[in-house]
Amino acid sequence: MTSYDITIAEYFLDRLASVGVDRVFGVPGDYNLAFLDKVMEHPRIEWTGNANELGAAYAADGYARVRGTGALLTTFGVGELSAINGVAGSYAEYVPVVHLVLGPPAEAERTGALVHHTAGDGDYERFARAQRSVSVASASLTRPEDIPDAAGRIDRLLLAALREKRPVYLRMASDIALSTIPAPTRPLSEEERSLPVDPGSLERFTDDAGRKLAEARSAAVLADFLVDRFGAREELAGLLDTTGLPFATLSMGKTVADESRSTWLGVYSGAYGDARTRRTVEDADVLIRVGVRPADTTSGGFTHRFGPGRGIDLQPGSAFVDGTEYPGIPLAVALAALTGVAAGKPLADAFTGVAGPGDGGRDPRPGEPLTQAYLWPRIARSIREGQTVVAEQGTSFYGLCTHRFPAGSRFIGQPLWGSIGYSLPALLGAQLADPGHRCLLVIGDGSAQMTAQELGTIGRHGLTPVVVLVNNGGYTVERAIHGPEAAYNDIARWDWQRLPAVLGVDDALCLSAATPDELDRALAAADEATDRLVLIEVHTGTHDVPELLGELTAGMGSRNGGG
Amino acid sequence: MTSYDITIAEYFLDRLASVGVDRVFGVPGDYNLAFLDKVMEHPRIEWTGNANELGAAYAADGYARVRGTGALLTTFGVGELSAINGVAGSYAEYVPVVHLVLGPPAEAERTGALVHHTAGDGDYERFARAQRSVSVASASLTRPEDIPDAAGRIDRLLLAALREKRPVYLRMASDIALSTIPAPTRPLSEEERSLPVDPGSLERFTDDAGRKLAEARSAAVLADFLVDRFGAREELAGLLDTTGLPFATLSMGKTVADESRSTWLGVYSGAYGDARTRRTVEDADVLIRVGVRPADTTSGGFTHRFGPGRGIDLQPGSAFVDGTEYPGIPLAVALAALTGVAAGKPLADAFTGVAGPGDGGRDPRPGEPLTQAYLWPRIARSIREGQTVVAEQGTSFYGLCTHRFPAGSRFIGQPLWGSIGYSLPALLGAQLADPGHRCLLVIGDGSAQMTAQELGTIGRHGLTPVVVLVNNGGYTVERAIHGPEAAYNDIARWDWQRLPAVLGVDDALCLSAATPDELDRALAAADEATDRLVLIEVHTGTHDVPELLGELTAGMGSRNGGG
Repeated sequence: MTSYDITIAEYFLDRLASVGVDRVFGVPGDYNLAFLDKVMEHPRIEWTGNANELGAAYAADGYARVRGTGALLTTFGVGELSAINGVAGSYAEYVPVVHLVLGPPAEAERTGALVHHTAGDGDYERFARAQRSVSVASASLTRPEDIPDAAGRIDRLLLAALREKRPVYLRMASDIALSTIPAPTRPLSEEERSLPVDPGSLERFTDDAGRKLAEARSAAVLADFLVDRFGAREELAGLLDTTGLPFATLSMGKTVADESRSTWLGVYSGAYGDARTRRTVEDADVLIRVGVRPADTTSGGFTHRFGPGRGIDLQPGSAFVDGTEYPGIPLAVALAALTGVAAGKPLADAFTGVAGPGDGGRDPRPGEPLTQAYLWPRIARSIREGQTVVAEQGTSFYGLCTHRFPAGSRFIGQPLWGSIGYSLPALLGAQLADPGHRCLLVIGDGSAQMTAQELGTIGRHGLTPVVVLVNNGGYTVERAIHGPEAAYNDIARWDWQRLPAVLGVDDALCLSAATPDELDRALAAADEATDRLVLIEVHTGTHDVPELLGELTAGMGSRNGGG
Repeated sequence: MTSYDITIAEYFLDRLASVGVDRVFGVPGDYNLAFLDKVMEHPRIEWTGNANELGAAYAADGYARVRGTGALLTTFGVGELSAINGVAGSYAEYVPVVHLVLGPPAEAERTGALVHHTAGDGDYERFARAQRSVSVASASLTRPEDIPDAAGRIDRLLLAALREKRPVYLRMASDIALSTIPAPTRPLSEEERSLPVDPGSLERFTDDAGRKLAEARSAAVLADFLVDRFGAREELAGLLDTTGLPFATLSMGKTVADESRSTWLGVYSGAYGDARTRRTVEDADVLIRVGVRPADTTSGGFTHRFGPGRGIDLQPGSAFVDGTEYPGIPLAVALAALTGVAAGKPLADAFTGVAGPGDGGRDPRPGEPLTQAYLWPRIARSIREGQTVVAEQGTSFYGLCTHRFPAGSRFIGQPLWGSIGYSLPALLGAQLADPGHRCLLVIGDGSAQMTAQELGTIGRHGLTPVVVLVNNGGYTVERAIHGPEAAYNDIARWDWQRLPAVLGVDDALCLSAATPDELDRALAAADEATDRLVLIEVHTGTHDVPELLGELTAGMGSRNGGG
C-alpha cells in the first residue's frame, strides 16, 4: 500500500470500520460537530443521533453485544458524563465499546481557558480521570505534539478493547482531530486482537484435564456470558456436540448454546429455580464451567454449590483444574482442547432421560386476569429462530430466562450491572446491528420511563421491533425487595398507548392485553404487522412477580438490612 | 440537650433539615429502600422520586439555586453514575448539592462479593473515585469501624458544601446507615458554615480600596453569579443603594441585583451585545467586579476588556485591588467594607442619563410569522415580580438574558456547564423550592427531548408552572455553530401538544403559537390558568437565533477548527 495523508478523524473511523463497526451512536455537541462531518462523509460508517447520551451509551452496548464491538461519540464534560453509567455497564459486563470524546481546541486546553463544559478551573483532565473507573485503557490526542503518535494510540486503544472485551476511552481536541497523519498501511492482525496462548501451559492443562475426565463417572457443563463475550460459542457447541454432555447456563449466559438441544438442562440459579437442573449440575462428578462468573443475581444469592477449587473451570485467559491455574489459555482454545480429551468418554451416560424444563405454560380459565405465570411462557413460545430478545432487569429478565429459547436466538439482559432503563436503548442498538431479524423487547413501566425518548429514535430509523411493556404500576422488582406499598415505589401514570405517536412513531401498532386471550391476540397481530413498530402493553398485578425473582428478592431485602 | 440514640440515616436527615433542606430528590434502588423509609418518616423532609437519576440531579441543583442547598439520593453504581453529569454542573457552577449514595451491605464490601451494581471485581471504591472529579469533599460510612466517626464525617461534609458552595459525596452501606449513634447535641454554627475572615487583611483592603476610589473620577459595578452563590445579594444591594453606581452583570449573574433600578446598564458580554452597556463598563475609571468569572459563553468569547490586574475585584474568599490579593475576605464582607469607603464619593456623577436597554420589542405586522426578535422581549415583559425563570442554554438563555427583569425575579441558566436538558428538571426543583411563586421555563425542542420525562414528575406533584417550548426542529444552537443543514442537527418530531397528557399531566393546558398574536393570546391564557401546568409551544424558524447568540456561536465554530 502507498501511504497518503488523512485526518486523525478519518484514521479513527477507518480503523473502527476495519473491526466491523458500521455505526456510531451519540449526540451532537459543539466540540464534536466538525468530527461529525467526517462521520457523515465516511463510506462505511453510519451515524445514529440519540435523544440523550445515556441512551446512546446503552444503544452502543446493545449494538456491541450483537456485532462484537460498538462505538459512542459524545462531547466533552456534559456529554461524556451523561453517558458514563451506560459505559460502566459495558465495563461490568464485558462489552467492548469505544468511547470517543471531542473536546475544546488544543489552544484552550494549553492555556486552561474557562470555556463551557469545563469545571471552570482549567483542569481538562478532570473528566478523563472519572472515565478511568469505567474503561480498560484510555488515551488523549489534545496537543500538537500528540499528533505523531496518534495512529499508535488509536491502534493500541482499539486492540485493548478487542482483547479485553471492555470499554476504552479516547479524548481528542476538536481541532487536533482534523490534523492529518499517514493512512494505515496494514490492518490490525488477528493475533494482535486476541489474548495470547502459552503452548506449554496448554499442554499441561490438556493432560491434567484429560486425566480428570478419565477418572470421572459423569460430567456436566455449566456455561455463562463470558463464552459469548470472548467469542467461544462455536467451540462450546463443539464440546457439547462431541460429548453429548448435559448443560445448563446461568441466566446471564442464556443462549450461549442452543437450548433446543435435548441435553439442555435449563438455567441454573443455585438453590432457587428448577430442582432437576440444580441436581444435575451439582451432582455431576466433574462440573465443567465455561466462562462462569456467579453474581448475587445469577447464582440465587450465592447459593450455588461449586467453588473455585473443584472441577474444570475455563476463564477468559486461564483454565483451572481442581483449583490449579493454567495461565495463557483463552476460552476458545481451552474448549477445543477439552473437546479433544473428552471425546469418546461415557461421561453423559448417567444422564440419560434427564430433561430440561417444560414450557411451564398452562391453559388459563376463560376471562381470568393476565398473570406473570401465563405471560412469560407465552412470550417465550412466540420467540423465533434467530431472534434477539432484550429483557429489562426485573420481572422481564427473570420471567423469561427460565424458559427454553429456539435455536439461534439471543438473550440480552443486564443482571450484573442491573441499570434499569438499559433495555430500551439497547433494543435500538441490537436492532440496528441485526436489521434482518425483528427484535423483541420486554420491559416494565418504571424502567421504560427512564429512557423512553429512544422510542422516538427507533421510529426515526424506521425500525419495526416488538415492544412488550409490562404495566404494573411502578417499581415492582423494588416492591418485591422492600416497601411493597411504599409511595417511593409508585411512578407517574403514563398513557403508553399514545406514547409512540407522541414521540413521532406515527404508524406504530399499539395494543393492550389484560387477559390471556388478549395477549394471544396481540402477539398474533404483532406477527402480522411486520412493517411497523408494535407496542403491546400488558397489565399484570402490582405485586405479581415470576417465581425465580420472588426467591431472589426475598434474600436481597434481608441482606441489605431492610428486613 | 440530652443525648439519645438515632440511626445514622436520621442523623443525616436531621442535619440536612437544620441547614434548610426540606426535600430530597432521587430514584429508589434496592440498596437505598430501607433508607427511603427513614426519609418518608422524617417530619421535616419530603421525598421526590424522579423518572431517572440525571433528572433528579438537575432537580436537586434547581432546588439548591433557590433554597441555598440541595440533596440527592441515589443507589450505588448505576444510580450515582447516571446522576454524575448533573452533579458536575453543580460543581462547575458552584451549587452545593449533597449527594448521598446507598450501597451494598458492609459484609458484601468487606468480602468483595460480586453483587449487582458493582463492576464485578470487588472494587467498591471504583465509583467513589469517579465522583471525586465532581465533588469538593467526600466520605464513606461502609464499615462497622466507621460508625463512631459517622457524625463527624457527616458534619464535616455538610460544612464543606456550605462553605465552598460545591457538591459533596457521601457513600453509606445500606446496613451501616441503620446503625445507631448519639443524636446531635448542638447545631452547626454560622461560623463553621462560612469562609473565615482575616481582620488584618480586611483592614488593608479597606484602606487601599478607599484610596483607589478617592483618586477615581468614576466607577461602575460588574456583578456575576458568585454574588448569588456566596450569599452576598443584600450586601451588593447595599453598595448600589449607597453609592448610586451604575451596574451591569454577566449573563450568568443576571438578577443578582434588582434590574428595575434606573442604574441597571444591562448584561455585559464583552464586544458583543449592547454597545452602551459595554462603553459604560469599560470606560469607568474603576471597575468594581463582584464575584465575576468570565467564561467563553458569558464574556463574548473572551472579548471582555478587563483583566485581573486592574480595578477592584471581589472573589469568594479574597479581594483584589489592582491585582494585589487580600486573602481571607469573603464576598459579603468585602462588599460591606467597600460600601463604607465608597459612600459619599461622587463616583456615579459621570453617568447621569446613562440608561439600560429598552425592552427591545416592536409592534409586529399583522399575520407575520413569529420571530425570536419578537418572542424574547414579549416573554420578558410577561415576567412577574418574584418569579423564577429557568432558561435552557441555547436560544432561550441568550434570548432572554439581555432583557430587563422585574424586582425580586430570579434567572436560572447554565451557561458555563451548558448541559442541554438541564432546565426542565431544574424547573421541577425550583418550583418545589418556592411553591408560592409560579415558575416559568423556556426551553428548545432538542433540549426538552433529553429530559422530557420529568414533566410527568411535575404533574405528579401537582405543580403548575408555565413551560414555553421553542419548537424549531432540532439543535438550533448547534446549527448556528456548525452544520446548519447537517442531518445530525435534526431530531425526532414529537407531538408536544399531546406530550403532557401522555406523561400523566391530564389537566395541562397546551397551546401553540406561530404568530405574534397567538403568542400574546397564549401568554394571556397562561395568566388565567393558574391552577394547572401550561405548555406554550412556539414555532420559530430553524435558523432564527437571538442576536447575542449569533455573535457568540460564530466565534465558537471557528475556534473549534470547524470553520
